[in-house]
Amino acid sequence: MLWGIHAVRAALANPDRCIAAGWATRSAQAELGGAPDRSWTTVTTAQLAAQLPADAVHQGVAIEADPLPEVPLGSVLSSSAKPGPLVILDQVTDPHNVGAILRSCAVFGAAALITTDRHAPPESGALAKAAAGALDVVPWVRVGNLAQALAATREAGRWVAGLDGGAEETIAGAGLAGSNSKTALVLGAEGKGLRRLTKENCDVLVRIPLQYANNEKCANLIDSLNVSNAAAVALYEFCRD
Amino acid sequence: MLWGIHAVRAALANPDRCIAAGWATRSAQAELGGAPDRSWTTVTTAQLAAQLPADAVHQGVAIEADPLPEVPLGSVLSSSAKPGPLVILDQVTDPHNVGAILRSCAVFGAAALITTDRHAPPESGALAKAAAGALDVVPWVRVGNLAQALAATREAGRWVAGLDGGAEETIAGAGLAGSNSKTALVLGAEGKGLRRLTKENCDVLVRIPLQYANNEKCANLIDSLNVSNAAAVALYEFCRD
Repeated sequence: MLWGIHAVRAALANPDRCIAAGWATRSAQAELGGAPDRSWTTVTTAQLAAQLPADAVHQGVAIEADPLPEVPLGSVLSSSAKPGPLVILDQVTDPHNVGAILRSCAVFGAAALITTDRHAPPESGALAKAAAGALDVVPWVRVGNLAQALAATREAGRWVAGLDGGAEETIAGAGLAGSNSKTALVLGAEGKGLRRLTKENCDVLVRIPLQYANNEKCANLIDSLNVSNAAAVALYEFCRD
Repeated sequence: MLWGIHAVRAALANPDRCIAAGWATRSAQAELGGAPDRSWTTVTTAQLAAQLPADAVHQGVAIEADPLPEVPLGSVLSSSAKPGPLVILDQVTDPHNVGAILRSCAVFGAAALITTDRHAPPESGALAKAAAGALDVVPWVRVGNLAQALAATREAGRWVAGLDGGAEETIAGAGLAGSNSKTALVLGAEGKGLRRLTKENCDVLVRIPLQYANNEKCANLIDSLNVSNAAAVALYEFCRD
């Protein structure tokens, strides 16, 4: 089940998305430009809420849909793949964070998201809602072995940059500002960070410069951004003119 | 109730935070450097989970605490206030987003967060967890009237920049890169954006440059970042050397 106006609008616009059924309130139908077809059911907000998890921000619309077809790694590494940086996640499991990262991928024109097939969240309503439509727009590649995928990415000519709080150089200091399509950005889980083998398969480790000067207390207590916030900052820097 | 290692560690380090009781597993106590005092209760993970909301990522520790004392606007606008940009939220209500924004405020050395007292989330466990300790480090001012607070911020000598997807100039294009302590950043709720009166009380409206060139489909479907991601990108640009 997927829900939310943006997520459903993007699913409807995606020819690869197979939708089995849909439910929408009259006002959500108006916002979507009418009920998509006769198989949709008109519901009240209360009827829809009863079908969905308690914390689902459904905005009056939900669909039952198959997961998207698998995207092979080769298709996003080939020379004919669309431009933009790649974003690679090493065991980031929170669906809200992965959804927000997909949304940033769309906004900053990333070529694709790459995750492992285990230790990554499945397609879900919460993830699709956080992605605000990006789940149906940004190619999402799932790989069995991340180290091999990083090696293939390097062989395909991309510079693989791992984000690591302990790195010496900043993104800009490492010359990655505006690097865009030449780059792949690798992010690890909050707390754990990048795994050893992941780090070893990066060309460079870089950090986002933090500004503790103003508040000594912060230095001992808060040493990193939320992972989706870190991804947005890095993509912003990669896509700088 | 607050929970999570980072949130609790920061609360314990905050002399203004009044803690009534604490519960921690043995391993969380070890991570915190021992049970803080004899009033704490040693619990199992299951006992702790039974006390907290079902989706609480408690990491083995929780406290019962009073809300922090109110912070007056004047104290963060005075010439003796700590440096760094101000972050002002216009009806951003999601506690995860506000928590992540507090965390970014800490990381980028923002002087304070300002919200309205209504249409803003209260201090809560979910917000404190997302803030990862920043709730006890970053001053949070709640004001009755946002337009008046914006006027007072301008009178105090800060340049008030509202983030608006429809703005002509980018943050960098408007000369705000590295503007740091001279600036206040204003963000609106997702979907609604800044209210009319809020916009009228900004010195300038700026946008984050989006990169749709790579994917035409995105332009019609996804036109903004998650609000906490947008805040992180703007703070990063404000704090640029």
